[in-house]
Amino acid sequence: MTTSDSGPSAETPVPDGSLLAAIDLGSNSFHLIVARVEHGEIRPVEALAEKVQLGAGLENHRLSEEAITRGLECLARFGQLLGSVEPERLRIVATHTLRVAHNRRDFTRPARALLGTPVDVVYGREEARLVYLGVAHTLADDAQSRLVIDIGGGSTELIVGERFEPRELESLQMGCVSYSREFFPDDAITPERYRAACNHARLELSHIRHRYHSGLWVDCVGSSGTLQAIEGILSTYGWSSGGIDRAGLEQLEQKLLKFKRFDTLKLRGLSPQRRNVIVAGVAITRALFDVLGIQHMRTSKGALREGVIYDLMGRLSHEDVRERTINALMQRYAVDAAGAAIVEKRAHMLFDATRKKWELGKGDRELLHRASCTLEVGMAISHKHYNRHSAYLLQNADLPGFSQEEQEQLALLARTHRGKLDPSLWADSGESEEPRLLRLITLMRLAFLFKHVEQLEQLPEFSIETGKRSLKLTFPEGWLAQHPLTAWEIEQEQLVLEKLGMKLRIL
Amino acid sequence: MTTSDSGPSAETPVPDGSLLAAIDLGSNSFHLIVARVEHGEIRPVEALAEKVQLGAGLENHRLSEEAITRGLECLARFGQLLGSVEPERLRIVATHTLRVAHNRRDFTRPARALLGTPVDVVYGREEARLVYLGVAHTLADDAQSRLVIDIGGGSTELIVGERFEPRELESLQMGCVSYSREFFPDDAITPERYRAACNHARLELSHIRHRYHSGLWVDCVGSSGTLQAIEGILSTYGWSSGGIDRAGLEQLEQKLLKFKRFDTLKLRGLSPQRRNVIVAGVAITRALFDVLGIQHMRTSKGALREGVIYDLMGRLSHEDVRERTINALMQRYAVDAAGAAIVEKRAHMLFDATRKKWELGKGDRELLHRASCTLEVGMAISHKHYNRHSAYLLQNADLPGFSQEEQEQLALLARTHRGKLDPSLWADSGESEEPRLLRLITLMRLAFLFKHVEQLEQLPEFSIETGKRSLKLTFPEGWLAQHPLTAWEIEQEQLVLEKLGMKLRIL
Repeated sequence: MTTSDSGPSAETPVPDGSLLAAIDLGSNSFHLIVARVEHGEIRPVEALAEKVQLGAGLENHRLSEEAITRGLECLARFGQLLGSVEPERLRIVATHTLRVAHNRRDFTRPARALLGTPVDVVYGREEARLVYLGVAHTLADDAQSRLVIDIGGGSTELIVGERFEPRELESLQMGCVSYSREFFPDDAITPERYRAACNHARLELSHIRHRYHSGLWVDCVGSSGTLQAIEGILSTYGWSSGGIDRAGLEQLEQKLLKFKRFDTLKLRGLSPQRRNVIVAGVAITRALFDVLGIQHMRTSKGALREGVIYDLMGRLSHEDVRERTINALMQRYAVDAAGAAIVEKRAHMLFDATRKKWELGKGDRELLHRASCTLEVGMAISHKHYNRHSAYLLQNADLPGFSQEEQEQLALLARTHRGKLDPSLWADSGESEEPRLLRLITLMRLAFLFKHVEQLEQLPEFSIETGKRSLKLTFPEGWLAQHPLTAWEIEQEQLVLEKLGMKLRIL
Repeated sequence: MTTSDSGPSAETPVPDGSLLAAIDLGSNSFHLIVARVEHGEIRPVEALAEKVQLGAGLENHRLSEEAITRGLECLARFGQLLGSVEPERLRIVATHTLRVAHNRRDFTRPARALLGTPVDVVYGREEARLVYLGVAHTLADDAQSRLVIDIGGGSTELIVGERFEPRELESLQMGCVSYSREFFPDDAITPERYRAACNHARLELSHIRHRYHSGLWVDCVGSSGTLQAIEGILSTYGWSSGGIDRAGLEQLEQKLLKFKRFDTLKLRGLSPQRRNVIVAGVAITRALFDVLGIQHMRTSKGALREGVIYDLMGRLSHEDVRERTINALMQRYAVDAAGAAIVEKRAHMLFDATRKKWELGKGDRELLHRASCTLEVGMAISHKHYNRHSAYLLQNADLPGFSQEEQEQLALLARTHRGKLDPSLWADSGESEEPRLLRLITLMRLAFLFKHVEQLEQLPEFSIETGKRSLKLTFPEGWLAQHPLTAWEIEQEQLVLEKLGMKLRIL
């Protein structure tokens, strides 16, 4: 493949007939979809769902060993269906349960080893964005504003948008698995418990109702298995003529409350696998109808996994939403783009010289690019300690398209790109990542140091030799002597990197 | 005095002949200035400086008892000169040493009791803004860009600006008192020590040189006693023909390095009080000349204290720079101004009903106004935990015109205006402030809760009774029953406030 000079649009987009795949590691179910690209749309060729109930294995922010095993066994089965899909055409996305599990790496590391693709844990609002993308592709392309709701196992996503553009994105910590555990311990059903679950969901929703109430959209669309199950029951019993409405929902409530326990629950149209979560799901749905003033909801088969595939198509055809996000961030925080471009140039020069020995890949090069653009976003807050402010923003901001780990790595590079370093910075990164991150930090720091060379003139050509935990820079003879301040800054840098076990030598 | 409807400009500005005063609690000296307003400019009628060396009493972020006593004794003397100045026409500003002292309240509380005016500890960039304001008023009103430098006892401020508008503001943690202690322990002078001090200052400066180097301004102006002392010596020895230049500075260096200890230092034109800090001051000055490419610097008598007086004039004539800051903040973070106005209206309604019993004052009303405008700035980062993000921004952002404590209180109200509360939130506030802050938090939370009443209709008239740690709200009969969600939200609020010892009763 040759790359012409006429810009990214000249690059080959995803050709017709290509296979793409997405795996959604939900708190209730794991889903796999394999799809074929046809005229820019996707056509599913394989779809599989397993009720792993990962969320049920979460206790005090720790995932149990049993749940991890259940999840990995499911992924092994999924792997058999993925045979011909290239690893870079698969994306694995994880949501609520892995977001909150402190030991998430005990799951994500073996999962990566199993499938050859990293697991991207995404924040709630990114999940909402992807859900909307998936749903929007299944709907007629009308311009009416719509409310899209996805009740998951651990979180509920709410989106108001038009066409393919979400306007409001929200993710609330209420889901059918977590509510079942919290409000219906021992699987017992009582009207009081049901009321408590409803009320709790109402309180969560009351904080957002002024942005989501029925005056602000025309059409309401439900995604997710819970809402499809409710629709199925209503239709089987003849309690609604398509979709979910208030009257049907009340009839379903009365029926459910006649049962005393989950395991005795029997309803036509309800699969046995859903028995444990349907009561909590109905309670959440009821609260949604009440607080947001919903009269009628139809359901859509589009969901997170379809959204992930459409997003992946964008990435592969150089319409990566992450680039748009970075540009928006630079604008909002008035980043000096010319300065960022110098840092990026230096970083990529250093990257090219070290990539082989340091086993760095395309993703690392992209990370250096995005980090170069965002190192100084914190300047808009204050020049003092701006690197900490940059890290705070990159860690906490809603960055459409980014996974939690990508945000954490951007934040790490921003925090450490200058100043003293504290070895405790590895605390969160998972020790297996440490050598790679130390290398990226070293490149980023040197690129930033060389941004402003004394007298602001050009940096000279210099040679680079790479060792496993060392870097040797050789400057033209006499140059360092003529630039005592730069030489002195490099000396300070040696001391800082030494503490992290990276040896910097200068000749 | 009557207030017409024609807007703030109709309010009486500070009348000619009024007395205003400022006290600057520097790390090296305390300064008092009393000035009379004449045609919008100020004319000093009293000026006093005492070399308290508060910074020398700082050890591990704690101010020693001796230093506190020295400082308070000085303030008692200042107080005698302040006789006829009204407390609201005096502003007391503290800088580096009190910024970093964790036990600062052991000084600021008795100081307030002594003078009747609170001590405003200001952040470095606010100090820089005030220095520039003071210096700009002493200079001819030409449009040339200028670099203004103030070498203080604990920090050095650097400002690039034109006329009265600063363009770049910076405060670096290097000062003549702190450098004397760090690089010249036991008051001994050696060439190595001098070089180390210089080099350290150079490194600090290297990070900012691309925004401050000589290509970016025309004129260089030094403020502060250190630079005036250097100018005085150069002129006495005939080493310069006005101002400070590179050649003169080098001659002074050579002369200084002939002495072995501070207490044997004798130079014509140098006051004995300055012996302990002049060597460090020259080292910092030398680094400034080297790194920023300064060739010549003239000095100005304008300084922080004059800036504080001009700023105070603005506040008293309703041109409060803090209002401009709040507006800029709302714009940058796209705050919903209409929503903020509703919260402010509710907050002021509650304030008016409780102010007497709760002993709240004009400053508290202003705080509620500014907090209402800024509660939601963190939404621009993320909706999730936005109150924490708001608090982070309000705590860390450069907010021209605000003191450290004002920023902390804005941050406190933003963090606590919704959600659960943790009693540990008082940790930083100093226990004597707790009752007042709890009252303000209560008002802010209720104002926010009443922002969006169910169905979004008007809040009804209700009556308020105030106890010392209690509040009773009486709603029209039947209203709460008709608004179960709002009633339920108020119930939740009762539980939250109860934990902090505030009793909320609803009828």
